[in-house]
Amino acid sequence: MEEEGAHTRVDGDEGRGHDQEWSSMEEPLLKKTPSLTSTDLAMVGAQVSHMESLDYEIIENDLFQDNWRSRSREEILQYIFLKWMLAFLIGLLTGGIAALINLAVENIAGQKMITVSALVDQKRYFAGLSYLTLVNLALTSVAAILCVGIAPTAAGPGIPEIKAYLNGVDTPDMFSPSVLFVKIIGSIGAVSSGLDLGKEGPLVHIGACIAAQLGQRHRRGCRWLRHFDNDRDRRDLITMGASSGVCAAFRAPVGGVLFALEEVATWWRPALLWRTFFSTAIVVVVLRGATELCKSGRCGLFGRGGLILFDVSNVEVHYYPADILPIIAVGVIGGILGSLYNFLLHKVLRLYSLINEKGKAAKLLLSLSVSIFTSVFAYSLPFFAKCSPNPANGSIGNLERFNCPAGYYNELATLLHSTNDDAVRRVFSTATAGEFGTAALTAFFAFYCVLGLITFGIAVPSGLFLPIILMGSGYGRLIAVMASGFIKMDQGLYAVLGAAALMAGSMRMTVSLCVIFLELTNNLLLLPITMIVLLIAKTVGDCFNPSIYEIILELKGLPFLQPNPEPWMRNLTVGELAAAKPAVVSVSSVEKVSRLMEVLTTTSHSGFPVVDRCARTMATELHGLVLRSHIIAALRKKWFLKEGGRMDEWKVREVFGTGELAERAQSIEEMDFTAEEMEMYVDLHPFINLTAHTVVDSTSVSKAVVLFRQVALRHLLIVAKYPRPEASTLVGILTRQDLRAHNILNAFPDIASRKASGNREKFTP
Amino acid sequence: MEEEGAHTRVDGDEGRGHDQEWSSMEEPLLKKTPSLTSTDLAMVGAQVSHMESLDYEIIENDLFQDNWRSRSREEILQYIFLKWMLAFLIGLLTGGIAALINLAVENIAGQKMITVSALVDQKRYFAGLSYLTLVNLALTSVAAILCVGIAPTAAGPGIPEIKAYLNGVDTPDMFSPSVLFVKIIGSIGAVSSGLDLGKEGPLVHIGACIAAQLGQRHRRGCRWLRHFDNDRDRRDLITMGASSGVCAAFRAPVGGVLFALEEVATWWRPALLWRTFFSTAIVVVVLRGATELCKSGRCGLFGRGGLILFDVSNVEVHYYPADILPIIAVGVIGGILGSLYNFLLHKVLRLYSLINEKGKAAKLLLSLSVSIFTSVFAYSLPFFAKCSPNPANGSIGNLERFNCPAGYYNELATLLHSTNDDAVRRVFSTATAGEFGTAALTAFFAFYCVLGLITFGIAVPSGLFLPIILMGSGYGRLIAVMASGFIKMDQGLYAVLGAAALMAGSMRMTVSLCVIFLELTNNLLLLPITMIVLLIAKTVGDCFNPSIYEIILELKGLPFLQPNPEPWMRNLTVGELAAAKPAVVSVSSVEKVSRLMEVLTTTSHSGFPVVDRCARTMATELHGLVLRSHIIAALRKKWFLKEGGRMDEWKVREVFGTGELAERAQSIEEMDFTAEEMEMYVDLHPFINLTAHTVVDSTSVSKAVVLFRQVALRHLLIVAKYPRPEASTLVGILTRQDLRAHNILNAFPDIASRKASGNREKFTP
Repeated sequence: MEEEGAHTRVDGDEGRGHDQEWSSMEEPLLKKTPSLTSTDLAMVGAQVSHMESLDYEIIENDLFQDNWRSRSREEILQYIFLKWMLAFLIGLLTGGIAALINLAVENIAGQKMITVSALVDQKRYFAGLSYLTLVNLALTSVAAILCVGIAPTAAGPGIPEIKAYLNGVDTPDMFSPSVLFVKIIGSIGAVSSGLDLGKEGPLVHIGACIAAQLGQRHRRGCRWLRHFDNDRDRRDLITMGASSGVCAAFRAPVGGVLFALEEVATWWRPALLWRTFFSTAIVVVVLRGATELCKSGRCGLFGRGGLILFDVSNVEVHYYPADILPIIAVGVIGGILGSLYNFLLHKVLRLYSLINEKGKAAKLLLSLSVSIFTSVFAYSLPFFAKCSPNPANGSIGNLERFNCPAGYYNELATLLHSTNDDAVRRVFSTATAGEFGTAALTAFFAFYCVLGLITFGIAVPSGLFLPIILMGSGYGRLIAVMASGFIKMDQGLYAVLGAAALMAGSMRMTVSLCVIFLELTNNLLLLPITMIVLLIAKTVGDCFNPSIYEIILELKGLPFLQPNPEPWMRNLTVGELAAAKPAVVSVSSVEKVSRLMEVLTTTSHSGFPVVDRCARTMATELHGLVLRSHIIAALRKKWFLKEGGRMDEWKVREVFGTGELAERAQSIEEMDFTAEEMEMYVDLHPFINLTAHTVVDSTSVSKAVVLFRQVALRHLLIVAKYPRPEASTLVGILTRQDLRAHNILNAFPDIASRKASGNREKFTP
Repeated sequence: MEEEGAHTRVDGDEGRGHDQEWSSMEEPLLKKTPSLTSTDLAMVGAQVSHMESLDYEIIENDLFQDNWRSRSREEILQYIFLKWMLAFLIGLLTGGIAALINLAVENIAGQKMITVSALVDQKRYFAGLSYLTLVNLALTSVAAILCVGIAPTAAGPGIPEIKAYLNGVDTPDMFSPSVLFVKIIGSIGAVSSGLDLGKEGPLVHIGACIAAQLGQRHRRGCRWLRHFDNDRDRRDLITMGASSGVCAAFRAPVGGVLFALEEVATWWRPALLWRTFFSTAIVVVVLRGATELCKSGRCGLFGRGGLILFDVSNVEVHYYPADILPIIAVGVIGGILGSLYNFLLHKVLRLYSLINEKGKAAKLLLSLSVSIFTSVFAYSLPFFAKCSPNPANGSIGNLERFNCPAGYYNELATLLHSTNDDAVRRVFSTATAGEFGTAALTAFFAFYCVLGLITFGIAVPSGLFLPIILMGSGYGRLIAVMASGFIKMDQGLYAVLGAAALMAGSMRMTVSLCVIFLELTNNLLLLPITMIVLLIAKTVGDCFNPSIYEIILELKGLPFLQPNPEPWMRNLTVGELAAAKPAVVSVSSVEKVSRLMEVLTTTSHSGFPVVDRCARTMATELHGLVLRSHIIAALRKKWFLKEGGRMDEWKVREVFGTGELAERAQSIEEMDFTAEEMEMYVDLHPFINLTAHTVVDSTSVSKAVVLFRQVALRHLLIVAKYPRPEASTLVGILTRQDLRAHNILNAFPDIASRKASGNREKFTP
């Protein structure tokens, strides 16, 4: 904890204590990080100025313990019942909203394509182009205006922020009702406008928003829900929400749980696994119910896809040695392309952040330009493609004639003149070898590569899954077509493998992707091959750069704590780390108001160690840690003592409700004390977290990182291994920022050089 | 850490330091646990006398740090490469052995049943009975004699011990080559003998054995593998081995990973997830290759099942409201039956342990009796069943005529006269409504309930999965047949749901079971229903007792550390816990040989805090922790100093290799020192773990439990929050045993009563 307080930032920011916590997190050792520029911080759509660390650990102070011991059996059962009810509600609402979005998108986009087809059939090509472009522009505008005007944080996928939240970093306005609203309407607009983006990422965010809203404080009317108004329970709820979102996006209940487990969540408990699974089960039942309801066509074009999105189960998979090489090639290329995509997207996002900084109009203009570009090229490219004769046994219903004579079809129009989901279905389609030639697939792949790079950063809700699936399926099928002389497996399955490989190459997931693809395609026999391809692609991708989510986290400046400490962290002790920081600011257990006010205004720390010093023996006593928010709460109640001493416990309980103490730090601006009050004392005893975690100063940073992350800490106190009567027991305090690799490297360049000798650099985007 | 040393146990046990650690783990607060009797400890097949705690944390002493810093880039890459190679080898070997076991079992059991069928067709009923009984008896004898004579730990499933190992408790002789050998041959014998047990549990154990052998010390010739000779890496390897085993058993690669994650492993890292996934991918490729090789019939009866064991994907699943109630009934009954099974199996295992205590002959006799019982009844019961006419459109090939006239078949014979896998296939078979009537299914269910209870505890390698699947499918199909008037879903799917529900009711897993059933049956549309049924069954089962694995862990006296602390643990501080224990035994950093010998002989602790006291100021310095094994290693080298002082570091490195220090504690019996040597000193500095984890004495036990388990500790030091010059900083030391709920409850009965007020009892088998 340091003295310098980043006041410039705090100043303009009355009404929120958050910022101070964030700045205290931000500054510790970080003067200027190498990969982080100010443009990055103002990046695409998300405001990152007011982040906050979360308290996932239980603050065991006197008040908490009284409260804990007085819980009745009924209260505990009520709490357990409510947790299940909330899991149920999250599943129900996410599933319902997903069904609604699907209903809207499939009808809007479907009707649009039907009209375009009709115009093309009448040879009114220019009318078709104008209609498509204008409708798409209108739909994009809805999404972009909402995003730019109402909720900028609703742009993008939201998954990195959820990942950061579950790691312990709160991005403000990420889960508010307005974000939820914009995300739902914006997704419908953006996805139906034919932009190269999917509803998958947004649905994950929607699930998380629903979960956060259900666990939110503002529902004060409901006495029951107050139990869930703490960071710990909200974390669990958001994990469930994110899983439900993935499940709703891919209709993959197990894949949803695993995605949350492998990619999104930092902490995990068996009980949470089970409850998350329950949520996704509800989602899939709701979706199943909705498709059954709509089977008879009463929901327009919705529900034709059935419960399994891209079913390729009608092909028997056999393994032939001839397929080994092409399959390995799909994996290797997936890894290379995936990391290349990560690299290029990083550049594009930096460029976009420069444009977006210019204001709302620029943001809007960028989105609309991308929309026009997409519409015009998607419509016109097929004009350059050749016409192919309809296959004798082909699925004629799926092929687009476009500008071709009767009995012929346009390969590229079949791929580009459709909704995104239909495009995937067509490129995944099995038993259709030869329907798409090299030229069409190359154009398809190249076009979606360009779109995949330029679309993601615009100010509309967007996901990464669908663009990557489209790109991947393109190159997968292309390989199959090019090697069609000697491969024996179906070309559609190569498209599936390509999509899986590119996902693994960019997102670097394995088990969850495998299950998602299994649930997407319903072909269990493909599973072993999918596993191999995913493993190859991830391995190859890891050689070049980190996953796309890590890149975005880094771009957004979110202080994510990585699962594994860097090897060189064993060479540094926390004592050395503490010595490089300014001295700790601590308070006494019974402290003067004036001193507290001074500490609160001159520092921006979120927690203060409580240390008493015996005047006679000079021995120090480390009581624990008190939160900034609790000090402010005590000051606001003007809960003062004339002279030093202890308050009676029952008095404390009368004055401070537990709900009140769960609230975040209030602003200190409005507090005004008389000179007399300033000389009075506050008894902090009831608020002190008596069980703050400590490490001795000889502990390696490596161990501290493991401890910090595994036990989900916000503050870690360093105590002296050899306490000396004349020196304080307390050596320092560590926060999330202090334990981040590049902050440490900045403060200890010698470690960096020592590190270079033995270990490889992990982050090089 | 306490003074009393459980000497009686140590005495007869030269050559092993293990026991002492175990007894130091065992005794702390536990005088006599309520649910643990001596008969339990000598339970079915497994010897539990010499358990040991494992060091999953890195001992950061001077020697380690020197070694760490001097690692070259090549060494690190070599290490990473080797880890992947080992993952590959584990998958390859487990898959290969699984294919071999399947080959042997399917041929032996298949040929046996063909002969029996032929005898029955000739109306030579008694000859059939004799043949079946004798062949089964012979096969059982092979398994039982090997188990009783060579490797008693090979009996049973092994999964509880693996679970304990991954939690930090080593059961000796669990992963030795002889166990591996007995497990393979014994499984073949036991499974083909028609006993009601499967190869699933044993295969998990086989996978773990292979993994442990690959990471074992005895391969000293191989310089490379020495890196893996530590508890931490062996833990990772065994996790991979267990996953590979599940994968090999069910041909379910994702299910295998999830089973390890949800049920078996205590700690988990993303990197491990990925590597485990790689192992299971290899297993499934090997199995796939084996079945492809054997397709043309060159492996006898092996490979007919294909890669998906119990394929029910040929049925289209539709959801009808009429099915809701029966499906819920399947779930609820699964939960009730599962917990009842757990309860009864617990009683049977206690009874069997009394029998098994009587010696090897008794063990053998018990196994053979069960075999005779199984054979006689499985053969004869169908005589009491009625004959049914062959269905017009039925799968005639699957139906057994047995004693019926031509054109008829015997329902019960169809279920009982087959290998276990075939029985499951027949009861799962879809589109065969009416093939099995109420009477036959009731008899089948009742018979397998009896077998399921009496078979598990006998001295042969056995799994729990198959018996439970058989029971569950019986009652599931029974419900479908009884409700056949109004249900619309296929009866075979009810059998699948019944099996899943009973598994969840007994084993209490959710996600992994769901995926295993998905991979077993290849019917994705069944997934949502399976999820609901599993959740209901688990919830109902949890109301009555813990999972079967927890019951067996408790029976075997394995000190498993539960994932969540009990709620009442918040009401107790570690300081109070330490005060209830005998005083800590600590050593000085430079200690006299005589004192060390005294400490080693009078206590049985595995680690000692190192505390120096300054004679002048009386201030204590807590250096860290030194392991018993390291003290013994130093003493054995006679690495003494004439007077107190420090050794030069390079000298230390010359004398002690890191491999040597990774070894377990040697016996102290052989050490013999002269009187002169006894007066010399040992410099313990190089061995002291400088970064032993500490907590302050006001920490709640609840937090200590979370810390202990999350960071995978073996010892946790308690330091005084208010260090006083006259008192030691060190207050106490906590081990696994100190943090176990029922040990604490025994030492603090008042906590137990306080607890009763607010929280429910968790363990009541």
